[in-house]
Amino acid sequence: MGLDEIDTPFLLLDPAKVSRNISRLRRRTSELGVGLRPHVKTAKSPDVAGLLFDGATGPITVSTLREAEVFGAEGFTDILYAVGIAPDKLARVLALYRRDVPVVVLLDTVEQARAVADASRQSGIAIRALIEIDCDGHRGGIAPEDPALPAIAATVADGARLLGVLAHAGESYFCYHEDALAAAAEGERAATVRAAEVLRANGFACPIVSVGSTPTAHAARDLTGVTEMRAGNFVFFDLVMAGIGVCSVDDIAVSVVATVIGHRRDRGWIITDSGWTALSADRSTARQPVDQGYGLASDVDGTVHPDLLVADVTQEHGILSLRAGSGAALPDLPVGTRVRILPNHACATAEQHDRYHVLGDDGAVCAVWPRVQGW
Amino acid sequence: MGLDEIDTPFLLLDPAKVSRNISRLRRRTSELGVGLRPHVKTAKSPDVAGLLFDGATGPITVSTLREAEVFGAEGFTDILYAVGIAPDKLARVLALYRRDVPVVVLLDTVEQARAVADASRQSGIAIRALIEIDCDGHRGGIAPEDPALPAIAATVADGARLLGVLAHAGESYFCYHEDALAAAAEGERAATVRAAEVLRANGFACPIVSVGSTPTAHAARDLTGVTEMRAGNFVFFDLVMAGIGVCSVDDIAVSVVATVIGHRRDRGWIITDSGWTALSADRSTARQPVDQGYGLASDVDGTVHPDLLVADVTQEHGILSLRAGSGAALPDLPVGTRVRILPNHACATAEQHDRYHVLGDDGAVCAVWPRVQGW
Repeated sequence: MGLDEIDTPFLLLDPAKVSRNISRLRRRTSELGVGLRPHVKTAKSPDVAGLLFDGATGPITVSTLREAEVFGAEGFTDILYAVGIAPDKLARVLALYRRDVPVVVLLDTVEQARAVADASRQSGIAIRALIEIDCDGHRGGIAPEDPALPAIAATVADGARLLGVLAHAGESYFCYHEDALAAAAEGERAATVRAAEVLRANGFACPIVSVGSTPTAHAARDLTGVTEMRAGNFVFFDLVMAGIGVCSVDDIAVSVVATVIGHRRDRGWIITDSGWTALSADRSTARQPVDQGYGLASDVDGTVHPDLLVADVTQEHGILSLRAGSGAALPDLPVGTRVRILPNHACATAEQHDRYHVLGDDGAVCAVWPRVQGW
Repeated sequence: MGLDEIDTPFLLLDPAKVSRNISRLRRRTSELGVGLRPHVKTAKSPDVAGLLFDGATGPITVSTLREAEVFGAEGFTDILYAVGIAPDKLARVLALYRRDVPVVVLLDTVEQARAVADASRQSGIAIRALIEIDCDGHRGGIAPEDPALPAIAATVADGARLLGVLAHAGESYFCYHEDALAAAAEGERAATVRAAEVLRANGFACPIVSVGSTPTAHAARDLTGVTEMRAGNFVFFDLVMAGIGVCSVDDIAVSVVATVIGHRRDRGWIITDSGWTALSADRSTARQPVDQGYGLASDVDGTVHPDLLVADVTQEHGILSLRAGSGAALPDLPVGTRVRILPNHACATAEQHDRYHVLGDDGAVCAVWPRVQGW
């Protein structure tokens, strides 16, 4: 079907750009000599994962047990659930082990370590676990030098199977220079390697040293001591990543197709049928040097209007208007015209949809790929 | 099932509060002598609509054709689709008419009027339409005194069936005083009544004069000339509405149940498993006098911690911390503790979920109600 034949709003995926973005990161991890464990929370699609592994299954990271269950059923068995485990979720984790999906859990407290060890002993299944290390104070995790680290390790290893450490450089989303990004990547590396050394000195082998975020994956200069890189957003990229300088706007592989439903010419507004339900309410570019509103508009063929932003949204309305200070003329987009909106934050925009419409080489939609929904 | 037995995060609905909120608005519309055409875009649930109409079907407003299709199949036939019609969507509108669901469409341009009239003549089905009137410059709509108004009316009436006018006081979401809200309500009333008078002077009967928003529904002092009130959020309310003063925090009927998965005691953080996927990224209280972060925390039994906010979110993490300047002590919420998060914007938070878990009188979940998804 043509892009004009599908009811708007809908989420469009350009698989050629996805493949290009994947090849670029694969070159990086190959140069750096680390494995890649992509985070499927961005795409939440076994079909996109097919592009990541050339149709095979490989190691993945997930953000929900629902993702683990769906990808597990598709043959992915090497899965890391990279959100701190809630004790109540261990029954679902054990059910995955019984289906030969030995999902690795994450923890950073003695309470979680005890719950994971207890569940392992009671079930006779040694749950695999990583300890989350804090490298920059943006979320959870324990500092490598925290005296609680060996105690957590000893607690979890008393029944469960401690595999190593993990960190995520939240700080990298606030960096605007190659050197700052490289420093964030080095912070991730140094913290995890230091934590692994502490654990090894305490008798824990620590075969996995996991780092990752899309900015640090692309900026890291040396990953000595690291075994694997997690990154998720890189498959699609978005305006936040373009703002950081990790990609160009042309690399962004997903967009929302919308229809013009009105004008307020007195105010310089073009009104579309894509509100926050279709775009998400994410405003992450608001804190960047270039604020992209709720998204950047392009023609339906992908030609970007560099100054035409989604200035505001309500539930089902988007208001396009020119960037403040722009000398551009408001484009003539009559009622019924279709446009594409490039997302601020691809993870958040994609989450608003239950499927991708996949762009074929001929400019028409060649497939529909479902997305994993819920938790 | 108990609230501790369901996997988090999940969306909890308190039907006793919903019923109380509905009764309150029904008293208002009865006092004001206008009909109520509730906007089902907030709840997107035929079960909640059952509470609105005591199990019967009544006039409703929808924000997507998917809602019209689902509610139509449930027996709701008096439906207003209150987003400007895209010409491409008229085929679905006509399909609804053929299933005896004569959905009313909205328009504010000559192009739309022509498309609706053409589709009506070509199909032999006179599509019902309202013209959107602008009362305060927040979205679409045409000013009552705009000379294009009679032309739009004449164009649509040449084949379709013009039923009247509609306005939405977007400004009311930025009011913080009863008098300001009453003025916004009067602005809505005055604009629609004036537009209806213009149309009647031009020979169009205009049987429907529709106004509405939750703030103006509760603040309006006189609705002479208005025939119906639309409001949606009032069934649930939220922190934005509490900030405006239209409800109290205790009236909020939906929340997200989450689990504590970690602590950063050095930073005063409690980490939960509810990120923006569960709460939405909506930050509408940021522009209000009292900023509620990404939501306000309560114990799982509903007891509010008035200073404990969701200070930050990532995809699957929420960070609870005390409001800046609070003298309160951080509550002791061990790993595994369940909390409820009250939403900034109930429409946006509910949209992130495909179902409600319904709270019974005994404090356990007594039902699961699905939500309409997609467009």
